[in-house]
Amino acid sequence: MTEKKKLAMIVHSGTIDKLLCAFILTSTAVTMDIEAHLYFTFWGLTMLKKGEMDKAGLPATYKEMEKPLSDKLKQMNYPTPYQMLKRAKESGHLKIYACTPTMEMFGIKKEDLIPEVDTLAGAATFLDVAADADITLMV
Amino acid sequence: MTEKKKLAMIVHSGTIDKLLCAFILTSTAVTMDIEAHLYFTFWGLTMLKKGEMDKAGLPATYKEMEKPLSDKLKQMNYPTPYQMLKRAKESGHLKIYACTPTMEMFGIKKEDLIPEVDTLAGAATFLDVAADADITLMV
Amino acid sequence: MTEKKKLAMIVHSGTIDKLLCAFILTSTAVTMDIEAHLYFTFWGLTMLKKGEMDKAGLPATYKEMEKPLSDKLKQMNYPTPYQMLKRAKESGHLKIYACTPTMEMFGIKKEDLIPEVDTLAGAATFLDVAADADITLMV
Repeated sequence: MTEKKKLAMIVHSGTIDKLLCAFILTSTAVTMDIEAHLYFTFWGLTMLKKGEMDKAGLPATYKEMEKPLSDKLKQMNYPTPYQMLKRAKESGHLKIYACTPTMEMFGIKKEDLIPEVDTLAGAATFLDVAADADITLMV
Repeated sequence: MTEKKKLAMIVHSGTIDKLLCAFILTSTAVTMDIEAHLYFTFWGLTMLKKGEMDKAGLPATYKEMEKPLSDKLKQMNYPTPYQMLKRAKESGHLKIYACTPTMEMFGIKKEDLIPEVDTLAGAATFLDVAADADITLMV
Repeated sequence: MTEKKKLAMIVHSGTIDKLLCAFILTSTAVTMDIEAHLYFTFWGLTMLKKGEMDKAGLPATYKEMEKPLSDKLKQMNYPTPYQMLKRAKESGHLKIYACTPTMEMFGIKKEDLIPEVDTLAGAATFLDVAADADITLMV
């Protein structure tokens, strides 16, 4: 019996260019039968608050591209980041962790978070998963 | 026979601080007989358009350093990002992937890209390479 | 005898959101008996100059959060980035590398750096460490 391949990713960013990248990788991974583990921290964690993820914009460097990109994604009927995350979750191969130190730092409570979050956890939990993962990335 | 070590890197950024970092790693890797696989996506992908890479600037946070850094690099006779990429390509140990979803998002066509690109590919291709790589990074 | 797990991280960023993330991972890793190898380059390298690390701010995108975050961290008695790095160093499981090409680019000398730096090194040293690491990340 071969073990499943594993992707362990820290989602530190809260801008749509990074969320799309993270979630396209995740969506693709779960269809390839790769287990995906996403650990949301800092700005990424703030995007787990109900209603926040689909308001994500672009970073200051690319601010003027925000409107054209958003229009283009709508025209392409591209799924929103939250839709992508929910669909990947349905596969059963995605586990979502919310970083507890960040929650304290930003005064975010468990009940503020989207229901797709599996576990509130610290860095040790991520490191445990990542140490056995085949692909480790930070977005 | 031992297999070659492998570096799989996502180049998401399009600013010169990140491109230099990615390409110094890549140039060094290929001289160490490490296979380098660079998957260009988002802002990184836009830098694969002919004539774009050597116009890369600094992110908003460090904008005021753009001119002094550029002057310093010239004074050091530092190779430009594109020169570094081309030299690494000549080693035969570098493979360059252009992210197809980004190309559609930004309306970029195959013929717009520099000739060093090996393959147009989606996330599955990168994940396949990365799952067997020794070093995985996102820039 | 089993070998220790190894974390190899490139610290490219010089903003406090990224430094905190990198150093929380590092602090946690060393308490878990994971060897941590931090390679500081570019903006990260500039933070190794004596007196610089605890002046780190937020990136342009989140500039307006700088004061509230700083106040909150003080109120929580959160250790500063430099305090976290020094404590992690005391574990004996952390090795700190300063990127020599960046030092030349920014005109930084060995004697400008904090004493916790173990080695001045180029990309080859990092790649050697990373090729045998269990977790590779870039911040």
